[in-house]
Amino acid sequence: MRAHELILKKRNGHELTREEINYLIDGFVKGSIPDYQIAAWSMAVYFQGLSEEETIHLTESMVNSGDTIDLSPIPGCKVDKHSTGGVADTTTLILVPLVAAAGVPVVKMSGRGLGHTGGTIDKLEAIPGFNVELEIDSVVRLVKKTGAVIAGQTGNLVPADKKLYSLRDVTATVDIVSLIASSVMSKKIAAGADKILLDVKVGKGAFMKSQEQALELAKTMVKIGAGMNRETTALITNMDQPLGMAIGNALEVKEAILTLRGDLKGDLYDLSIELASEMLLMAKAVGDKAQAKALLIELIEKGRAIEKLVEIIENQGGNPGVVEDLSILPHASTITPVLASMDGYIWELDAEKLGRAAMVLGAGREYKEQSILLEVGVTLKKRIGDAVTKGECIADVHSMNSHNFDAALRIITDAVRIKAKKPREYPLVFGKIAN
Amino acid sequence: MRAHELILKKRNGHELTREEINYLIDGFVKGSIPDYQIAAWSMAVYFQGLSEEETIHLTESMVNSGDTIDLSPIPGCKVDKHSTGGVADTTTLILVPLVAAAGVPVVKMSGRGLGHTGGTIDKLEAIPGFNVELEIDSVVRLVKKTGAVIAGQTGNLVPADKKLYSLRDVTATVDIVSLIASSVMSKKIAAGADKILLDVKVGKGAFMKSQEQALELAKTMVKIGAGMNRETTALITNMDQPLGMAIGNALEVKEAILTLRGDLKGDLYDLSIELASEMLLMAKAVGDKAQAKALLIELIEKGRAIEKLVEIIENQGGNPGVVEDLSILPHASTITPVLASMDGYIWELDAEKLGRAAMVLGAGREYKEQSILLEVGVTLKKRIGDAVTKGECIADVHSMNSHNFDAALRIITDAVRIKAKKPREYPLVFGKIAN
Repeated sequence: MRAHELILKKRNGHELTREEINYLIDGFVKGSIPDYQIAAWSMAVYFQGLSEEETIHLTESMVNSGDTIDLSPIPGCKVDKHSTGGVADTTTLILVPLVAAAGVPVVKMSGRGLGHTGGTIDKLEAIPGFNVELEIDSVVRLVKKTGAVIAGQTGNLVPADKKLYSLRDVTATVDIVSLIASSVMSKKIAAGADKILLDVKVGKGAFMKSQEQALELAKTMVKIGAGMNRETTALITNMDQPLGMAIGNALEVKEAILTLRGDLKGDLYDLSIELASEMLLMAKAVGDKAQAKALLIELIEKGRAIEKLVEIIENQGGNPGVVEDLSILPHASTITPVLASMDGYIWELDAEKLGRAAMVLGAGREYKEQSILLEVGVTLKKRIGDAVTKGECIADVHSMNSHNFDAALRIITDAVRIKAKKPREYPLVFGKIAN
Repeated sequence: MRAHELILKKRNGHELTREEINYLIDGFVKGSIPDYQIAAWSMAVYFQGLSEEETIHLTESMVNSGDTIDLSPIPGCKVDKHSTGGVADTTTLILVPLVAAAGVPVVKMSGRGLGHTGGTIDKLEAIPGFNVELEIDSVVRLVKKTGAVIAGQTGNLVPADKKLYSLRDVTATVDIVSLIASSVMSKKIAAGADKILLDVKVGKGAFMKSQEQALELAKTMVKIGAGMNRETTALITNMDQPLGMAIGNALEVKEAILTLRGDLKGDLYDLSIELASEMLLMAKAVGDKAQAKALLIELIEKGRAIEKLVEIIENQGGNPGVVEDLSILPHASTITPVLASMDGYIWELDAEKLGRAAMVLGAGREYKEQSILLEVGVTLKKRIGDAVTKGECIADVHSMNSHNFDAALRIITDAVRIKAKKPREYPLVFGKIAN
């Protein structure tokens, strides 16, 4: 077998076998197949696509390229949740204690933010003392004890994905559904959960801009799950405007705490309940969705959810006082309101631009090794469809740096559109795909 | 400007500007743009193509990547000839002395053979003492003196082509007409001739298997010539069967000498007269084609052509006695006839297979650094359409190695087809494209 022949085969529109795909991925990771051949192959995949079988084989090869985590020492059905990336999406911080409070163990391995989207691991570092770097035996011990853990990735999971993504990033081959799907699913499968819930974001702040693309991605990932014997469900959810009202690490932790305390409702709360319900259903912890929702709302109202967060913070060395005293969280030196320029209705709150504004303020990274500011960001006062009067506050800018402030303000101003007419309403959840 | 954006632009079907193409090629040659980005770009070009303008800009960037030869010290119009590669195609050895004998200076820089096609430089080394490695000042001096020189490439011409071809060869991006055309034309333009005559081969022994592909390649090269102010003409010629009767280095030199002496006629003679006529017309040395042909035939019949070859051989240190005494050329230890298996007509003499058989015997290389045997090869006794009787000799195998002999014989047997019916006749020249 030679890489050249396999590139040619794919270029000419033929399907590669399981052995052929494995030969390419294995050789790429080991260095016997050079970057330039995989770059050419990826571009051929952009034009010719991968079949369902090929996508499953690719995912399998990626999983086999590194370590896999064995969660079988933890009793019960472990359901993992993954979001394809959005703005003000702090559902993970809400879901983990909430689902654990319902008696379903949750092992959540998260990443850091990149570009306009945030990352759970960055957010958690806003809680003083919180340790995200855990070895796998600590993860298992803490989940057995408390039912939940949130940590950075442990072990050498899916090295093929790291290498392939880095190459795709510089060869204009990122936006290929089959490669995105196998990247996500290989990491979820290697992380060892029994079942997988996917939150596929669609809209201005998401990678998938159209519902058609999001649906294709969701279907592909669910098919990979089926092909690899992992029950997988995908919700397709709205990411035109930021999901919550806060964008920025400490600001999002605060919003998550308020939501878990039952003090804040809205899209973030609603989607968290929706996703947590799916997780309870997948774990067969409840009979139906109505029962799941009732249970979850009760856990919040009775303080069980926030108690579980306290336990998680204690387990991982953080200051649990933060859930009572939000001022323990780092906060920005300057808060500046952004005012409405006219009377009317909020027509647009472009999630990508708002995420980018927070990044420019220092909340996120443009490249991987960049350091971030935990306290900065943007908090929204309005949502799409809300009425505003000229001069009313639409958002607050939380900043630490006057230079970046001007750039961020320009982006925010550009992200907000007010019109005289009330906009059409869109649902929060567009659909569900399951295998 | 970033390479990533340019790959994306091409991938999405947009046209790159002159500056953008130059940025890619210049960065690739200097090493600031890595192989994997050019590999991805080449694959995007396979699917999206290059426009006429882009192809011209690419050729220009390739020419500018290295040295160019200045032939202006040589008086007169210098016409270069290039063949896209065939089997038993020793027209160069015939054309150079023939055209020079007609008073038109010829500077011929040739290469070595690769795969099933031979190379003029290898063939010339069959003449004892012949020196193909000349500096550019020697080239100019010898052309001024004798009107002709045949040498290997001097200087660092088109390094971008060497690097790009090596990469395309291993990334399944060789068969892209615009890239083939710019590769050929950049080398011809850098070599400094005023006008360019292209012999675009089509058929079983050629890179272009269909007349449609050959026509597209010819048109693209002629357009590049026009775009870069080099008058360019392309003939599309038949390469289903070997052009001459001899395949192998010394064997082809012998055939060229016999042709120049006027002792051998056939397709090789006819095409040489055809190509030489075009060169005389391009150089405006004659009024029309009939006049050109008459002059060339006369030069052969009166011994002027073979005299010119003697001068060239003398100039370059070779033994000129070879034109009188062909036994000076190296010859194989064993000559074995291949016999017809049935009565009928020669239906097929697959040029690629016959070229490959000669290569297997040692006449050619599978990879660049391989050493070759000058004396081995195949000589044909029949051509397509000839009648044969069972047991009659179709070809002679000239070998030096009994092991390779069996493999070569199998390939030759596979290359020859005899049928009871006489095959349809195809012309030697299918068409002409000029700018």
